[in-house]
Amino acid sequence: MLGNFIYSNPTKIYFGDEAHKNLVEALSGFGKKVMLTYGGGSIKRNGVYDDIIAALTAAGKEVVELSGVMPNPTVDKLIEGCKVARENNVDFILAVGGGSTIDYAKAVSVSAWYDGDAWERFWVKQEDPKPGERIIPVGAVLTMAGTGSEMNGGSVITNHATKMKIGKVFGEEVMPKFAVLNPRYTFSLPHRQMVAGIFDTMSHIMEQYFSGDDDSTSDYLAEGLMRSVIASSRVAVKDPENYEARSNLMWSATWALNTLIGEGKSQDWMVHMIGQAIGAYTDATHGMTLSGVSEAYYRHIMKYALKRFARFAHVVWEIPTESKSDEQLASEGIDALAAWIKDIGAASEITSLGVTEDMLDGIADATIILTGGYETLNHDEIVEILRKSL
Amino acid sequence: MLGNFIYSNPTKIYFGDEAHKNLVEALSGFGKKVMLTYGGGSIKRNGVYDDIIAALTAAGKEVVELSGVMPNPTVDKLIEGCKVARENNVDFILAVGGGSTIDYAKAVSVSAWYDGDAWERFWVKQEDPKPGERIIPVGAVLTMAGTGSEMNGGSVITNHATKMKIGKVFGEEVMPKFAVLNPRYTFSLPHRQMVAGIFDTMSHIMEQYFSGDDDSTSDYLAEGLMRSVIASSRVAVKDPENYEARSNLMWSATWALNTLIGEGKSQDWMVHMIGQAIGAYTDATHGMTLSGVSEAYYRHIMKYALKRFARFAHVVWEIPTESKSDEQLASEGIDALAAWIKDIGAASEITSLGVTEDMLDGIADATIILTGGYETLNHDEIVEILRKSL
Repeated sequence: MLGNFIYSNPTKIYFGDEAHKNLVEALSGFGKKVMLTYGGGSIKRNGVYDDIIAALTAAGKEVVELSGVMPNPTVDKLIEGCKVARENNVDFILAVGGGSTIDYAKAVSVSAWYDGDAWERFWVKQEDPKPGERIIPVGAVLTMAGTGSEMNGGSVITNHATKMKIGKVFGEEVMPKFAVLNPRYTFSLPHRQMVAGIFDTMSHIMEQYFSGDDDSTSDYLAEGLMRSVIASSRVAVKDPENYEARSNLMWSATWALNTLIGEGKSQDWMVHMIGQAIGAYTDATHGMTLSGVSEAYYRHIMKYALKRFARFAHVVWEIPTESKSDEQLASEGIDALAAWIKDIGAASEITSLGVTEDMLDGIADATIILTGGYETLNHDEIVEILRKSL
Repeated sequence: MLGNFIYSNPTKIYFGDEAHKNLVEALSGFGKKVMLTYGGGSIKRNGVYDDIIAALTAAGKEVVELSGVMPNPTVDKLIEGCKVARENNVDFILAVGGGSTIDYAKAVSVSAWYDGDAWERFWVKQEDPKPGERIIPVGAVLTMAGTGSEMNGGSVITNHATKMKIGKVFGEEVMPKFAVLNPRYTFSLPHRQMVAGIFDTMSHIMEQYFSGDDDSTSDYLAEGLMRSVIASSRVAVKDPENYEARSNLMWSATWALNTLIGEGKSQDWMVHMIGQAIGAYTDATHGMTLSGVSEAYYRHIMKYALKRFARFAHVVWEIPTESKSDEQLASEGIDALAAWIKDIGAASEITSLGVTEDMLDGIADATIILTGGYETLNHDEIVEILRKSL
């Protein structure tokens, strides 16, 4: 059953291998001064930077650059970005990169003109901006598919001092005004990053799918998306420049986390919570922290929702039902998930990510425990799942 | 493969059995004078009218009523609505009803302040409003699921004088600013109307699905939606007040035609073209004109796309592949579709809709022939499909 909800997603998407040609039009009406944020400079090697600068020049913009946004953007970097945005009084922030860069741009967007401790207010206390507060509009040019940040209000920031990595979901006033999705911009991404993005996408879908035992359109859409991600992932890992596969993966990632497939239902974000705690400890690639714990997590949860896991096995993995019990089917579905994680080269365990036995207790402590799934975990269960993932 | 596209859907959705409580907030900021459009008055019998008037009053609006919008809104009615909107200088049009009422509101929205022949300009010539032209903003309260008009720019208008029924798809400036989707508002709908809406939804999905032989996320999403529609339809025809089923049908109908599942691919809208020609001749219920010709149409088209029809059979209808040929599987998929049409009580033929042998040639003449599908039909093929549908 679909519960009460409000759906609103005003982000305009320019999709395709000519998507960047819309940038001049997309930027019109957002003022003259643009802060261009990006990461380590890979966009300078693959030609994306040149496309963007050409568009910004054609649009008559004055550009302030802020580069060096790291994979898990930090509070310190946020403070730096706010200073630059404010000192230059920028009218717009154009984020060019993956989820981290776009998350970061949204963080600067709401924090730049706030005089207090933005980390404490928006992330720790999870407050929302007040009506009338100055928010700098954000646009995105995506170069890595996975996080979905290009069409949602999410912004994950890491505080190394307190070993906390917290996601805040802002409202539509903070969501990107537009996003340019050119699948070719993802071609030069390192293989490992592509795979991490694929698993991140799959995890987003599963974390919305594994809750409830009712009949909901949201779950059917989730199944469609999972089937598409699985089919395209198998092509992309062998042939990363396969445009068809990369375009499907890019579009699936966007819809995996722009609220649609979670509307009207409860959700289970524990894999992300555990993954984020691992990330805060190890700085490991986000998608790999999720794949590393997923098999153990879902085997633990399966017994509380055999019917849903049996449906997952049958519909998503096409495992014939024959005369199997729900339990057997459910278990075979997780086998298929685990095999796929190996097939695409995502992390099957967390030891290779730098997690050691002595960290487990601390990671479990740093894991934010959420309700909404089939079972609410306690500290010991998280430790147990982590241990099984070593 | 996903081709180049721009996705933008700014309509805000309030969904659920408390959705109407958001109406006061939704209406704020759209001026004082609201034109309330609705159909034959069923909303006065089922309590919806009272909810709406209460909200309009609470929002401090001045209301101009325009009722009597017919199932296939006509050019004459459009002219009447434009006159009322203009004479009262209304700031907003609130459509309460099904697709016809919302289509009609959009038609008035763009036509009211145009001095020429709006039918000729927007429908016959398919022109778009020019930037700066006055468009009256529209909001919708949906009481019948099926057309998807609540979250798109579509507007179908009928001209009885010329026996033409033409759909125009306007851009986002004409799309409803918001739509209130309360599944309970559809409970009192006559059974036949509910069924017609269900088939209309299914047809929208199939008409976007049956084109291309590539691997596209759009098709996986379409499969998910079809599976949800089929599952919920079987519940709803037996138990029309089943909230779960009606909420899924309502939400599926919205996503079946708000552009998402057709992005980046060609589409085949011939069933709608034939159905609209039948509608212009007989004034039959729209969804029934579609169900009446679908079996014959898809049996005719099947041979040009056996793989896609085999996939339809397997994924959507769960027909085991075993050692069947694509042709056999494809044919069994259409059998399943035809059986489902009968099961839910949609029209399996067009004789009961008032179509007679002597009309076939005229209906075929009135059918707009589109490309995009697996095969472009000629006049004789349309006559043949119509004859098989008698």
